[in-house]
Amino acid sequence: MRFRYLGLLPVILFTGTVCLAQTNQITSVEDFKPASSNQPGKQYPQVNSEGLVRASISAPQAQKVQLDIGGVRYDLVKDDKGVWTGDSRPQDEGFHYYQLNIDGAQVPDPGSMFFYGASRWGSGIEIPAKDQEFYALKNVPHGQVRENLYFSEITQAWRRCFVYTPPDYDKNVSYRYPVLYLQHGMGEDETGWPVQGKTNLILDNLIAEKKAVPMIIVMDKGYASKPNQAQNPAGPSRGSGGISTFEEVLINEIIPMIDVTYRTLTDRGHRAMAGLSMGANQTIQITMNNLDRFAYIGGFSGTSNFPNTTEIDPVTFMNGKFKDGEALNRQIKVFWLGLGTKEPDPFPGSVGAFRAMLDKQGIKYVYYESQGTAHEWLTWRRDLFQFAQLLFK
Amino acid sequence: MRFRYLGLLPVILFTGTVCLAQTNQITSVEDFKPASSNQPGKQYPQVNSEGLVRASISAPQAQKVQLDIGGVRYDLVKDDKGVWTGDSRPQDEGFHYYQLNIDGAQVPDPGSMFFYGASRWGSGIEIPAKDQEFYALKNVPHGQVRENLYFSEITQAWRRCFVYTPPDYDKNVSYRYPVLYLQHGMGEDETGWPVQGKTNLILDNLIAEKKAVPMIIVMDKGYASKPNQAQNPAGPSRGSGGISTFEEVLINEIIPMIDVTYRTLTDRGHRAMAGLSMGANQTIQITMNNLDRFAYIGGFSGTSNFPNTTEIDPVTFMNGKFKDGEALNRQIKVFWLGLGTKEPDPFPGSVGAFRAMLDKQGIKYVYYESQGTAHEWLTWRRDLFQFAQLLFK
Repeated sequence: MRFRYLGLLPVILFTGTVCLAQTNQITSVEDFKPASSNQPGKQYPQVNSEGLVRASISAPQAQKVQLDIGGVRYDLVKDDKGVWTGDSRPQDEGFHYYQLNIDGAQVPDPGSMFFYGASRWGSGIEIPAKDQEFYALKNVPHGQVRENLYFSEITQAWRRCFVYTPPDYDKNVSYRYPVLYLQHGMGEDETGWPVQGKTNLILDNLIAEKKAVPMIIVMDKGYASKPNQAQNPAGPSRGSGGISTFEEVLINEIIPMIDVTYRTLTDRGHRAMAGLSMGANQTIQITMNNLDRFAYIGGFSGTSNFPNTTEIDPVTFMNGKFKDGEALNRQIKVFWLGLGTKEPDPFPGSVGAFRAMLDKQGIKYVYYESQGTAHEWLTWRRDLFQFAQLLFK
Repeated sequence: MRFRYLGLLPVILFTGTVCLAQTNQITSVEDFKPASSNQPGKQYPQVNSEGLVRASISAPQAQKVQLDIGGVRYDLVKDDKGVWTGDSRPQDEGFHYYQLNIDGAQVPDPGSMFFYGASRWGSGIEIPAKDQEFYALKNVPHGQVRENLYFSEITQAWRRCFVYTPPDYDKNVSYRYPVLYLQHGMGEDETGWPVQGKTNLILDNLIAEKKAVPMIIVMDKGYASKPNQAQNPAGPSRGSGGISTFEEVLINEIIPMIDVTYRTLTDRGHRAMAGLSMGANQTIQITMNNLDRFAYIGGFSGTSNFPNTTEIDPVTFMNGKFKDGEALNRQIKVFWLGLGTKEPDPFPGSVGAFRAMLDKQGIKYVYYESQGTAHEWLTWRRDLFQFAQLLFK
């Protein structure tokens, strides 16, 4: 929740300053269309070419109805039929969680599809992005997204992961594939990457253009706790270099299960891990603890020193895992970090301090900036698009 | 929508008569627990051992908040913190769609998971059933549910289907499997069977007990329209024996796509079709038009004479497809019909007239009654559980 809340603040400040005219609905362009993220046949919410969101709902007896998006609540106005309608200020390109507030009740908008984020299933909306073609559904060969159920002995609980298999997986039955383990952020779950993340479409398009090699992508839930262990998603290892329960589950249960169930390449050179925000923190912890198992590391909008922004001492940080830069450069094929240009504190400072440590240690890494996006899904779709092109080559 | 609406009426009448005491909340048993269909960590809605549903939502400024379930709206009562809470009368065992009404706005309950039915994504709730073990998540080998995207040339649109593959599918790579095509009802879509229907769990359990043979199950969307053709889910063939666009898509696109993508047995003896309500109507139309392709037919809560309840003339009905009972008995391995004992008009009369026609023609069929359930998902889960045990043997 904390990640999400922090992520929304700069959107408020930015749009509040630049786009004040739109709040009076004087200059809004009347080219609103139903959002692509709407339920089938639903006319609202709508989006216009300026990125304004127009919400509308029938609530004849309500006293006050608001659209709650980007951390701002916008009052809707009632017409003589009891239908409330109103616009937000311009939103960033990409995907945003939002909700309606009806006389104090926070509820999903019945016009939108529902997504798991901010620790709830609720409304989300797509603002068309200039580069949306890279995650569009196109006439290219498509892979599958498969739901897998498995029992975790470590946590004594059933777990679920989604697995993307590339288009030719069921045809090339003697071929084995490299694997990317791809993790969501705090308040999200294993549905984040296959749904909001559009992982399958991004990879289908990249593979069709031969920009990425066919790979399997495993999207599991980043939470794990043992029986009678308090639920703590980041685990005991947060920033300490220790072993979290999720790391135990991933290393000892998920990877072996995937390697038995799918035709994988099981050496470290064909295994990658990446994650966003909390998932980036987990990725760096887990890969650095297990460099015998991973050769590719992707941190999207997060690093393992979060939320600290102070200088990192490589001697003590994560038990000295980053002390020997030369050795790491030999072992790690790609160390990749990404950040949106509109991300809020502490992300720029935290990722910046981590980069400064990598620079100081002479550790090679790729750094990517997503232009005009905050701590949200368009940043992470772009991260995956960039990162996937560097894998297993 | 019409199917769904009709389906709820008898529930109202029944519970209104028998359980009047509960409406005054005098005798309700205070053993309420969060529903199994709730979002992670959400305390409401709750269900007690009598099947009462207790809804609760914070809406401090609201004038009136209602729980809308089973076609009845129950007033909730506000406490001094602005939280509204209240109970329904006892609901049938099984799964029900429902919603909240806040000062006239019909919205999903933010405590529940969301399901597609009644032509919208919205709230649903599980009332524990005495026989719920047959669709429980158990420690047995689990198959996968796979999302497949494909382009339909006939409709010039992208379509999606979910495909259940049995537990051993990726291990027995030289084995080929029979296929059941399984269709949802009006106002539902391709998510109905994999989510509300619990198809994967029902089959995983049956296969583990060796009560069903391992099979592939294809769950596609039962709507199809050509460019510039008006959207008409049931198509032009409703009751006429003609060819609907969905039939064209299923026969000419979906089945060939499945037979290329999966290791299927492609003869008629290894292909079944079943569906619920509108999907039952479609199943009977399509299988009878294509007996060279299907040997097993399942009609759950529906037949192709719907909504008629009058005597069927086999000479004219569906272009005489049922005229030669002896020939049909040789061709059809299992003709299966199911109905809930609490289903509303016109289902009992309509299915009854269809059965009378089968009897008159000497056509063998299996008839199953789901005890104490209406035109809802527990009826159809039970239907699948029964029907699947008779397939491909």
